[in-house]
Amino acid sequence: MSASPLYGCIEAGGTKFVLGVARDHETLLRTTRIPTTRPAETLDAALAFFNDASTEFGSFAAIGIASFGPVSLDRNAPDWGHITTTPKPGWSGTDLAGAIGRAFDCPVGFDTDVNAAILAESLWGAARGSDIAVYITVGTGIGGGALIAGCPIHGLRHPEMGHMLPRRHPEDLAFAGICPFHGDCLEGLASGAAIRARWGCSLSELASDHPAHAIIAYYLAQLAVALQALLSPQRIVVGGGVMATPGLIDCVRAEAVRLSGDYFGCRDIATLIVPTGLGDRSGLLGALALAQKALR
Amino acid sequence: MSASPLYGCIEAGGTKFVLGVARDHETLLRTTRIPTTRPAETLDAALAFFNDASTEFGSFAAIGIASFGPVSLDRNAPDWGHITTTPKPGWSGTDLAGAIGRAFDCPVGFDTDVNAAILAESLWGAARGSDIAVYITVGTGIGGGALIAGCPIHGLRHPEMGHMLPRRHPEDLAFAGICPFHGDCLEGLASGAAIRARWGCSLSELASDHPAHAIIAYYLAQLAVALQALLSPQRIVVGGGVMATPGLIDCVRAEAVRLSGDYFGCRDIATLIVPTGLGDRSGLLGALALAQKALR
Repeated sequence: MSASPLYGCIEAGGTKFVLGVARDHETLLRTTRIPTTRPAETLDAALAFFNDASTEFGSFAAIGIASFGPVSLDRNAPDWGHITTTPKPGWSGTDLAGAIGRAFDCPVGFDTDVNAAILAESLWGAARGSDIAVYITVGTGIGGGALIAGCPIHGLRHPEMGHMLPRRHPEDLAFAGICPFHGDCLEGLASGAAIRARWGCSLSELASDHPAHAIIAYYLAQLAVALQALLSPQRIVVGGGVMATPGLIDCVRAEAVRLSGDYFGCRDIATLIVPTGLGDRSGLLGALALAQKALR
Repeated sequence: MSASPLYGCIEAGGTKFVLGVARDHETLLRTTRIPTTRPAETLDAALAFFNDASTEFGSFAAIGIASFGPVSLDRNAPDWGHITTTPKPGWSGTDLAGAIGRAFDCPVGFDTDVNAAILAESLWGAARGSDIAVYITVGTGIGGGALIAGCPIHGLRHPEMGHMLPRRHPEDLAFAGICPFHGDCLEGLASGAAIRARWGCSLSELASDHPAHAIIAYYLAQLAVALQALLSPQRIVVGGGVMATPGLIDCVRAEAVRLSGDYFGCRDIATLIVPTGLGDRSGLLGALALAQKALR
């Protein structure tokens, strides 16, 4: 048995759970993916994975959970560690942190997937050295997490950046948006699901001169501008499947400069808006960071 | 001479400087207002006021400055405590904190007027007990400051909330906006100056059924919604001359609920969006809070 503590890591997504066992961010001993089905079934599969790993590697010092939301993050609330009211069938009210904590009798760290991701990016990725940093994921949905002085923002609940209300692009007025709550909020307009609803495929499958690229960049740039106006971050780390579209980050940067009128004291947009440094590992390593934090 | 320390307080505005001498937030020994003219002249008048007060009350333990912006807040930067590039003639590059610190040889606290205001509101006003709180002033211009765990947000520079880009109201499309940087950003559309540019008078001078009320509420509500999405504050404290318009805060609350679709976990909009608890003293008391912080 090694001297360094053993951590369990859970990236709880709406489509899949990514599980990992690690000693540090460079030593992932084991990882797996399980589909997100019903809560009991999914949690049972996760517990089986961790029990198995514990047999091989020893007991866990702490476990971190980076979850899809909305979640309850108030340590003093009776529903801390629960998923609250999600449109995902069966998952509203699921007690993620409680189920894990009861099974392994160790400290449990719990936060949103995007808060965890920016924590990991600030420790080991593209947001090192930034006092205020934001992580935005643009995939099937859109989410954002923010870190100030090393602490993820919670507040009343936690940020839901995908639900800001951007100005409509003049060539996109016919599309109503797909958000069940707001219609044409950012997620309703610029998420992977919204792109597919409009154009029948992903952004990267559309020709590079297709107007969709400029339309999506216009919407995403407005989140960057709103963040500059309201939060003044030093770093906005962008990830997710849609952001992997070739050329998109440069279009977003150019639109952000055009819209902000060079006003917010940002000397170099390419150091403000940066690609993820941890790639698709940001969520799982975020869970590791939460576990380490829970142990401290 | 009293045992409690003596503080100098400067609310440095673009139109006037409000100066105060205080032992605590309930003991303002002396206050005055001086017009903001040229930097040297204005600073000389401020120094004369504080010298005079010092003769009567003793030497200052610390002085706080709550300044109009943009300002440099990086303690490690050579221009810390300066106003940076302001459109106000003659004031770009003015070293406010340095001039005060050299004259009185005491610690100087320095922040934006709105960051100082939310600090004061969190200590003595409408934001007590909130972990994340925002102060918005809607007057001649629009500004916003944010506090997280007792610390004002700085980041890359500091928030410039007045320059977010709201959706245009359908009955207000003919107006281009007056912001020299962005045209129709929030300040360009909903500030007192923008109201006057459009309708020739203040909002409170327009009849209560004039469409201006709904238009301005629509714009201001979008800042509240953007704050909920990006920062998730427990409290948004609103002040300034425009916000004093009878009925406006209720219109803003109603619009914020309508736009957010009740999504951000806010159970009672009337406890989220609240009027200033310190009124027109929030800036000066903010300077006091900065002075007290500088002494600690």
